[in-house]
Amino acid sequence: MKIPVDLKFDDNGLIPAVVQEWKTGEVLMVAYMNQASLKRTVETGLTWYWSRSRQKFWQKGEMSGNVQHVKDILYDCDQDTLLIKVEQTGPACHTGERTCFFRRFS
Amino acid sequence: MKIPVDLKFDDNGLIPAVVQEWKTGEVLMVAYMNQASLKRTVETGLTWYWSRSRQKFWQKGEMSGNVQHVKDILYDCDQDTLLIKVEQTGPACHTGERTCFFRRFS
Repeated sequence: MKIPVDLKFDDNGLIPAVVQEWKTGEVLMVAYMNQASLKRTVETGLTWYWSRSRQKFWQKGEMSGNVQHVKDILYDCDQDTLLIKVEQTGPACHTGERTCFFRRFS
Repeated sequence: MKIPVDLKFDDNGLIPAVVQEWKTGEVLMVAYMNQASLKRTVETGLTWYWSRSRQKFWQKGEMSGNVQHVKDILYDCDQDTLLIKVEQTGPACHTGERTCFFRRFS
């Protein structure tokens, strides 16, 4: 898998990634990548992000074991957002919910 | 539909919204809302965004007619991202593609 040369990272060097369960289409989470974490994701087949609050790399599931196996990576017409289709091991959310989007407007 | 009081907008007053076709689960686009465009979305049942490049409101489909009827709005565990499930009229992408995510890493 090759990283397109025309991807656009923002002023902080980041690009948002929407993460979707590849079989069910469920949207699991949104996180941010920089060029290096995207490279690591492509190379390892597991998702690596950049934490804006902690200013460090993190691999999804590195502590919990709930890793994401990358199945497909798409990008949008503006080349500034990624859509990563994954096979999620266990719940995606740190709360134990299957997806981070577990609350709705009432 | 009520806007949760604990939603977090970023330093520019924006929150990203992942837009998903409610029936198929297809991710159509990602755009940004501010408090006012979110309010307008909730009130009208159609999606309104804030354009970062043009610094103005825009209603999806206001020119093309390809509007998005809001079916459900969810938010994530960090309260800083929206997931909007819509019924999309016509293609979502200005290129004429059904979704903005029509290109993949080769």
